[in-house]
Amino acid sequence: MSIITLTTDFGAADHYVAAMKGVILSINPTAIIVDITHSVPPQDVWAGAFALAGAARYFPPGTVHVAVVDPEVGGERRPIALRARPGSGGLGTATPEDHFFVGPDNGVLSLAAELASPFTAVQLTNRAYWRREVSRTFHGRDIFAPVAAHLSTAGLDANLLAALGEALDPPPARLHWPAVAERDGMLIGEVIYIDRYGNLITNLSKRRVASQPSSVEIAGQRIEGIRQTYADAGRGELLALIGSSGLLEITVRDGSAAQALGAKVGDAVIYRRRAAE
Amino acid sequence: MSIITLTTDFGAADHYVAAMKGVILSINPTAIIVDITHSVPPQDVWAGAFALAGAARYFPPGTVHVAVVDPEVGGERRPIALRARPGSGGLGTATPEDHFFVGPDNGVLSLAAELASPFTAVQLTNRAYWRREVSRTFHGRDIFAPVAAHLSTAGLDANLLAALGEALDPPPARLHWPAVAERDGMLIGEVIYIDRYGNLITNLSKRRVASQPSSVEIAGQRIEGIRQTYADAGRGELLALIGSSGLLEITVRDGSAAQALGAKVGDAVIYRRRAAE
Amino acid sequence: MSIITLTTDFGAADHYVAAMKGVILSINPTAIIVDITHSVPPQDVWAGAFALAGAARYFPPGTVHVAVVDPEVGGERRPIALRARPGSGGLGTATPEDHFFVGPDNGVLSLAAELASPFTAVQLTNRAYWRREVSRTFHGRDIFAPVAAHLSTAGLDANLLAALGEALDPPPARLHWPAVAERDGMLIGEVIYIDRYGNLITNLSKRRVASQPSSVEIAGQRIEGIRQTYADAGRGELLALIGSSGLLEITVRDGSAAQALGAKVGDAVIYRRRAAE
Repeated sequence: MSIITLTTDFGAADHYVAAMKGVILSINPTAIIVDITHSVPPQDVWAGAFALAGAARYFPPGTVHVAVVDPEVGGERRPIALRARPGSGGLGTATPEDHFFVGPDNGVLSLAAELASPFTAVQLTNRAYWRREVSRTFHGRDIFAPVAAHLSTAGLDANLLAALGEALDPPPARLHWPAVAERDGMLIGEVIYIDRYGNLITNLSKRRVASQPSSVEIAGQRIEGIRQTYADAGRGELLALIGSSGLLEITVRDGSAAQALGAKVGDAVIYRRRAAE
Repeated sequence: MSIITLTTDFGAADHYVAAMKGVILSINPTAIIVDITHSVPPQDVWAGAFALAGAARYFPPGTVHVAVVDPEVGGERRPIALRARPGSGGLGTATPEDHFFVGPDNGVLSLAAELASPFTAVQLTNRAYWRREVSRTFHGRDIFAPVAAHLSTAGLDANLLAALGEALDPPPARLHWPAVAERDGMLIGEVIYIDRYGNLITNLSKRRVASQPSSVEIAGQRIEGIRQTYADAGRGELLALIGSSGLLEITVRDGSAAQALGAKVGDAVIYRRRAAE
Repeated sequence: MSIITLTTDFGAADHYVAAMKGVILSINPTAIIVDITHSVPPQDVWAGAFALAGAARYFPPGTVHVAVVDPEVGGERRPIALRARPGSGGLGTATPEDHFFVGPDNGVLSLAAELASPFTAVQLTNRAYWRREVSRTFHGRDIFAPVAAHLSTAGLDANLLAALGEALDPPPARLHWPAVAERDGMLIGEVIYIDRYGNLITNLSKRRVASQPSSVEIAGQRIEGIRQTYADAGRGELLALIGSSGLLEITVRDGSAAQALGAKVGDAVIYRRRAAE
């Protein structure tokens, strides 16, 4: 009944992810291990944080989430574990739940763990919960995997977190959703993620772009109105809609908006509350 | 003991598949989730149907198969669930079993579910088995995953299917295996799938190409005889054999037939019952 | 509690891996199946052996490892199963454990199974443990998957291995770690694997390169000293360190050493026990 999710930049080709799974199953043979993704671009902490935040909220209470995008492994950054209620914040539509998060203190856990909400955090210092031999370059296998396995065995009722190390001080590093600017009745947001289909996911939440009529501008193109779903547009048509994460998306029906617009993460997206005349 | 398979075009990089798994495990924590593939080319319903048909038959009775290749999500196409006996048809070598299938009504389930065989089908209308909030763009997470989780919990003995919605009328959309033409003692088939190795899988089943001597023609090249296995040919040699799905395959020993012949899905393949003199 | 790992060159896009999983779960519904990798380059037996050896040691006793990189499938090569204590040899840091290995007799199992250690091996001849119909081109599904499922059901205490076939004679094929040459106080090794990050993993184990000061030469470049971790170097800097497998690695901080040096598997790596003055 104990679920452990994994989010890394290790790729699917090498044996690193399997080594972590072997370590986990050696400690907790009944753990259910779920891959969120291992295709985070190498060292891209933001992309890892986004993937974890996008998926974590759908798991039941007690799930342990491990994220390893860790350019500073073996250096000064702290290994940490958190207990938090993800999903009440940035992405909008979530139900708060009681989850664990394990990984490096570089912000990769912070979007999912919603550090604005109440949380408990420890610095992992108790080597009794690590592998005996700890590599300086693979804390995923030697610290985070065994700690997660022990947390998943103990469950929500045990107070294992306190045994894993000392209270985290200063508090954990945080990433922040890019701010939305408001000016002259416009909302100015940006593209924060591009998915496999070439959909452009923005930081404009459905609560902010609910009013109609409206228009969206990106890369010099204006899109009138916000549709309900892809099928409301013709093939190849550019459209804006509220995506499955509760965020405004720019998309092309049966095509790639990223390709059609040459768009990339960080590009500005302007929402106007009324359609221009 | 309850198995759920997933076939999608979501790719492995984004968090969409993990969101479905979180929803499933929140409803049925003992579900065993098996990925068939998430690398179906975006919106390619035929490729998704083929992958599901290729793998479904090897699973035990009671398995719930979810397929989400769904260009019309949120539009008029119906969400459906089927109970069927796959594998008695198109691909030839299967044992009939009692499986469930869940997904959009666009044919993606139809090759595996063998709709020529007896089946029960419902349109998913009972929102009690869905997530509370249903996105217009991600029925995989909000309708198909929870329905599959409930089916897997109930098992074969419960009559849960009837509770999920109304009898499907008109009947489900079907894809069809491309027909094989017969003319002047020749069979004219086509390439229906190209796998990772560049093997060209055709719609000519082993029952139809059993007689020897024979020859196979593709892309202007003639291959004499049908071999037993790759090792029967020299390195780099083009050969024809009956592949693991019971279908005629064109292949290159330790190489790629697709590359060597510049072949693609839909290319004609001619089987002659006697080798030309 | 029974774990089966899979290492293949099937890729993640086709349905072949899922077919094996269906076969396994039909025989042992409680098997925990872990993918090591399915991205072994097609027919690259060495790369498959390396991936399996890299991950196998982290799994608990009784784990059954299946590897299918099998260019000679259906030909003369023997299907085999081994019981062995992996990890006491080539890669250095492992604890010996009692594992099973199943696959073709082409060496793909031999790096992980550490055939220098005591082992028992059988040629798989007893068709009672196979699928009823055996394709000449897919022993992964029809022989190795069902044999692994039966082994995982029986566990370490049963003597199932003996029932699977006859004692293997002659003994199994072996791959060998490339030898390290020693000359004029230098160690001459080579690159044996390149991972997703472009890290160059060599056959120089930490026991042999422990002395300091020292230098490493590759592709005409000299690297002074051996660092503890990536964070000890500046961004873009080339460095040498002992990687997580206990082997000397050449790496670029936040970059790709493979790209920076144009390096490939087999390239020479020279370790000098004293830094040149």
